[in-house]
Amino acid sequence: MKRLGRYTIEFDENIAVTGYGSTACKKEAEGPLGGNFDKIIYDYYASMKTYEQAESVFQQEAFEFALKRSGKKAQDIDIIFAGDLLNQCISSSYGLKVFGIPYFGIYGACSTMAEGLILSAISLSSGASRCSACATSSHFCSAERQYRFPLDYGGQRTPTSQWTVTGSGSCILEKANGKIKLSRALAGRIVDYNIFDLNNMGAAMAPAAADTISRFLADTKTSPEEYDLILTGDLGEVGSKCLYDILEKEGIDIKSVHNDCGLMIFDRKKQDVHAGGSGAGCCASVLCSTILPKIQEGYYKNVLFIATGALMSPTSSQQGGAIPAIAHLVNIIA
Amino acid sequence: MKRLGRYTIEFDENIAVTGYGSTACKKEAEGPLGGNFDKIIYDYYASMKTYEQAESVFQQEAFEFALKRSGKKAQDIDIIFAGDLLNQCISSSYGLKVFGIPYFGIYGACSTMAEGLILSAISLSSGASRCSACATSSHFCSAERQYRFPLDYGGQRTPTSQWTVTGSGSCILEKANGKIKLSRALAGRIVDYNIFDLNNMGAAMAPAAADTISRFLADTKTSPEEYDLILTGDLGEVGSKCLYDILEKEGIDIKSVHNDCGLMIFDRKKQDVHAGGSGAGCCASVLCSTILPKIQEGYYKNVLFIATGALMSPTSSQQGGAIPAIAHLVNIIA
Repeated sequence: MKRLGRYTIEFDENIAVTGYGSTACKKEAEGPLGGNFDKIIYDYYASMKTYEQAESVFQQEAFEFALKRSGKKAQDIDIIFAGDLLNQCISSSYGLKVFGIPYFGIYGACSTMAEGLILSAISLSSGASRCSACATSSHFCSAERQYRFPLDYGGQRTPTSQWTVTGSGSCILEKANGKIKLSRALAGRIVDYNIFDLNNMGAAMAPAAADTISRFLADTKTSPEEYDLILTGDLGEVGSKCLYDILEKEGIDIKSVHNDCGLMIFDRKKQDVHAGGSGAGCCASVLCSTILPKIQEGYYKNVLFIATGALMSPTSSQQGGAIPAIAHLVNIIA
Repeated sequence: MKRLGRYTIEFDENIAVTGYGSTACKKEAEGPLGGNFDKIIYDYYASMKTYEQAESVFQQEAFEFALKRSGKKAQDIDIIFAGDLLNQCISSSYGLKVFGIPYFGIYGACSTMAEGLILSAISLSSGASRCSACATSSHFCSAERQYRFPLDYGGQRTPTSQWTVTGSGSCILEKANGKIKLSRALAGRIVDYNIFDLNNMGAAMAPAAADTISRFLADTKTSPEEYDLILTGDLGEVGSKCLYDILEKEGIDIKSVHNDCGLMIFDRKKQDVHAGGSGAGCCASVLCSTILPKIQEGYYKNVLFIATGALMSPTSSQQGGAIPAIAHLVNIIA
């Protein structure tokens, strides 16, 4: 591995995603990507007693699909990197404890999937693991209760708000000559533009995405058109527009190749999700259901995956803190 | 780097801790290690408006002492790994955002310091960073409010309960021929012995520590007496006894070389902390104030640092979940 410019790391050629898996729930099944997920669990409780336990099931099953696709067993995984949006990341720790795999908990809010991919690749490169895994998830009902209001309260949603995806994505990575390779990555910095509106996560996260994309393009001396797809995590409609605005001031125009997982996963005209989807499970499930298969079959050859996360908590917001955000980037190639 | 046995990783010879810093508060200053911390902040609010913001200050200042000792500036750090006990790890994200360093959030509860050290070393080994940092913290008042009761409630503490340390520790790591070297590491697995008592974290974490120590000794074919010190994170009095019991059944006796950061930081006879200290800042501040200097001066030559973490949340406990735990191990040598 070598470093490129000030911030970018470039992996050796043989870091491959050899397995991926995704799960989603009823609302995601009704969206445009409904046919792509490995499994739809229609019950929001996933036959468990609580939404938090259900979220663990979504993550477990996504990981099992990833294992299956890679031809690996749980005991073949040397390290798994996982985290989620719940306090103390319980859907990951309770969901994955049954597998008995050496575990590093990570917290990047909705940027977790990219953080997990990067750390998996770094651990392979270093020799610390021979086979790494990553996983994350989110659940509409557990997230609403924790970050906003219990569902039973029936709170009115603002037009800029996003709908937390109920679902999960997981990847297995190995040193191998696979069809899906991680070529470069860039770790996000915490960016705080003094956005205070908890119902406008897109606006809070867009500056972090812009900071990351701009640093990456500078380091690699590449332009947006050289990529088939620049895919942000879950900026939604509002955040995507903010991203265009910020990048435009730096003379960068990504519009022709940009898409956003929060815009892809739901049909905003029919599904009443306002500004789009969100949650750690949003970009994870879109990546593992829709993007990675298209890279595998050669439809996409060079993709930038930029997962964005908002790092506030209900406590920091109640205490008057703004919403700091982060965006980690992974360059995935065929 | 190479792998040793089934689980252990062995770093090349040149992974060194070149800087470390620690901060603590009034109660820690009154304990046996009071003279060792880089800075005592006597005000629990650290001149901020809330305890959470204060915790960020403890972490910021510990990191700044680590930077100073290593002769580095913030912009020299390629990646920082940080996390804490607060929901969404806000003391780390709000505390470290001012530095503008590429940031990977981690969550290992009280095991965070060891996780951060391991990931810092892995990223150096891989070439992903030329200089890594890690940091964590805890604060008695923010932790009590979040995990148990607001202080004003005046809840009675049980004899097995531990006192959350208000403090922080941070390290800078580089590829260098330093006097403090990371030689080996082992990532923890999530272990769940069906302990439900939130006032007995030591008992919940001891099985994870035992699992980790036992796997490490088997992989490295070493015995406890070969180490100057086997230092667990914050098992306290109850957890340390549980650890001895579990290991004894496997024929492993660590008593003669064992100590625990939760037992070291307070004087349990005088300071009314019941079973000892705890919190992510406990083992971090003990390591960075007391242990690393003694390795640097050659007093200790071969130390096992095993930070333990309990991975439950108030929500998982309210829903009847047991307390899963994890323990990450780092072998630090002179």
